[in-house]
Amino acid sequence: MKIAVDGFGGDNSPSAIVEGCILALNELDVNIVITGKKHMLEEELKKHNYDISKIEILDAEEVIECNEEPVRAIRRKKNSSLAKALNLVKEKEADAVISAGSTGAFMAGATFIVGRIKGIDRPALAPVMPGKNGPFMIIDCGANAECKPPYLVQFATMGSIYMENIMGMSNPSVGLINIGSEEEKGNELTKAAHKLLKEAPVNFKGNVEPRDIPRGDTKVLVCDGFVGNTVLKMYEGVASTLFSTLKDGMLSSTRGKIGALMLKPIFKKFKKDFDYKEVGGAAFLGIDGICIKAHGSSDAKAIKNAIKQAKIFHDNGVVEKIKEKIEQNKE
Amino acid sequence: MKIAVDGFGGDNSPSAIVEGCILALNELDVNIVITGKKHMLEEELKKHNYDISKIEILDAEEVIECNEEPVRAIRRKKNSSLAKALNLVKEKEADAVISAGSTGAFMAGATFIVGRIKGIDRPALAPVMPGKNGPFMIIDCGANAECKPPYLVQFATMGSIYMENIMGMSNPSVGLINIGSEEEKGNELTKAAHKLLKEAPVNFKGNVEPRDIPRGDTKVLVCDGFVGNTVLKMYEGVASTLFSTLKDGMLSSTRGKIGALMLKPIFKKFKKDFDYKEVGGAAFLGIDGICIKAHGSSDAKAIKNAIKQAKIFHDNGVVEKIKEKIEQNKE
Repeated sequence: MKIAVDGFGGDNSPSAIVEGCILALNELDVNIVITGKKHMLEEELKKHNYDISKIEILDAEEVIECNEEPVRAIRRKKNSSLAKALNLVKEKEADAVISAGSTGAFMAGATFIVGRIKGIDRPALAPVMPGKNGPFMIIDCGANAECKPPYLVQFATMGSIYMENIMGMSNPSVGLINIGSEEEKGNELTKAAHKLLKEAPVNFKGNVEPRDIPRGDTKVLVCDGFVGNTVLKMYEGVASTLFSTLKDGMLSSTRGKIGALMLKPIFKKFKKDFDYKEVGGAAFLGIDGICIKAHGSSDAKAIKNAIKQAKIFHDNGVVEKIKEKIEQNKE
Repeated sequence: MKIAVDGFGGDNSPSAIVEGCILALNELDVNIVITGKKHMLEEELKKHNYDISKIEILDAEEVIECNEEPVRAIRRKKNSSLAKALNLVKEKEADAVISAGSTGAFMAGATFIVGRIKGIDRPALAPVMPGKNGPFMIIDCGANAECKPPYLVQFATMGSIYMENIMGMSNPSVGLINIGSEEEKGNELTKAAHKLLKEAPVNFKGNVEPRDIPRGDTKVLVCDGFVGNTVLKMYEGVASTLFSTLKDGMLSSTRGKIGALMLKPIFKKFKKDFDYKEVGGAAFLGIDGICIKAHGSSDAKAIKNAIKQAKIFHDNGVVEKIKEKIEQNKE
């Protein structure tokens, strides 16, 4: 398979992106097209040893920055590294696209350039998160700030197929993020979505209260993009605030420093267990092609993991399986 | 002042409730009416030394449980400890009411029995949370799953008055919880509310992304009750999951146990800094009376703090100040 990688997205581009591609080439049977400023990418490639038949550069002069208005940026910058990578998938010259750049521009570009799967009303951003009892998915995490109840059923369907095929979970459980466990709790959206999900061909377990999300017991959590993005950012924010506070405390005394030293292996394992870079990028599901959004702060290993994720996505025919299921559900 | 305390709400009632009342009597110049099953309350009171002229019991045979449908429960159980406490405020026989019982029943009862302040469309639940850089309020945290933009301006107004008068903050900053920092980000509600808040007579600082909430830099955070409740429960859930995971790690080796012992004072201080029981109960703002919802797991100290909070509320005339401000804003 051939994977298009946006060489100029993310905090550490292009060096970490190029390095991630090389790591992937050495581990996986894939071909890579990397898009972006040719001379800079060539300079980066020179630093590595690799099979030159496996990687090519597609020159792209423009870069979409994270502070640009996404829709305008993707429409105007047709020669950007992101637009060119997306076009390769549209033209079937690549099987997947990966970017660590602007989430908004990536989502807009995927929708406008590659296009939606027929029968999917709204594609959704679906990261897999680390939970105490294993990974879980939140879908949608920000593509759709406003949702109608049937969208959430489509999210549940796509998320279940993903978790089954990419994460190897059999009949993954589905939950609706809601502010109470009872069916009649919540807002208009969740009340209506609950009724639809009960009838849908997914393994629906009912409402999941935000308090229980970090446990990771329910594998596909559906919600509108406003709530999903809030949950995602609270997860990051609470964890980082608590740890920076603890760290300040530990560094403020000798006893604290010694204790911190003793606990170093535990903190390290903990950090690894709750590191979303380990889980890969966020899939943008509902697009008629494989789109993986890597975290903006991705290092080479995270890029390599996103490429691996795209390969599993492709090898398992996840897009085709979503299409089949959506057809079936219509009947 | 006289404070009505629901003797039969919360996990530790009636013993912790009674003990909390006694602690308050010994520290503050207040009178207390405690509602609930008379013989049980008398038994509890016998365990303590106190000025009998300062406390009275109002017999109430019924108890509203947390799993009951709130509106039905408050309407049917007119002889419940909660309904009787609320009636005392309605009849001006008490100046404030405190309950650690069902949040839903308390909110429904406060609205139906005590009533709203004229000009307030929707009362809102407004807990003060511990943040890294000091306490902050989230309003609404669950009273209104659906909100219209003007409600959020009323929340901002009430929250600002509260933080100024109860927490002693001068001109507290106000933020709108949103999934992006730019004005045009978010859903229909936040986009419209942002415009209104810019024009409102509050110290509006713009959007606050959920990632930054735990820092506590912005003092009054407004949002609809679905989002607020999600934020609140994520705060609790992420913190407790991370710590239980860390604890499991520390207990799994001798080195971990020693490290944990070394860090005990830091963990203890940390726990205290992030303990919402220290901050008191959640005010139910917009009600024409003082209503404080104490946490369900309140111990005696938390109940005492809630009583203290009600006294500051009363002494500073917060309800009257909200009324004045709402009148002014109308003009």
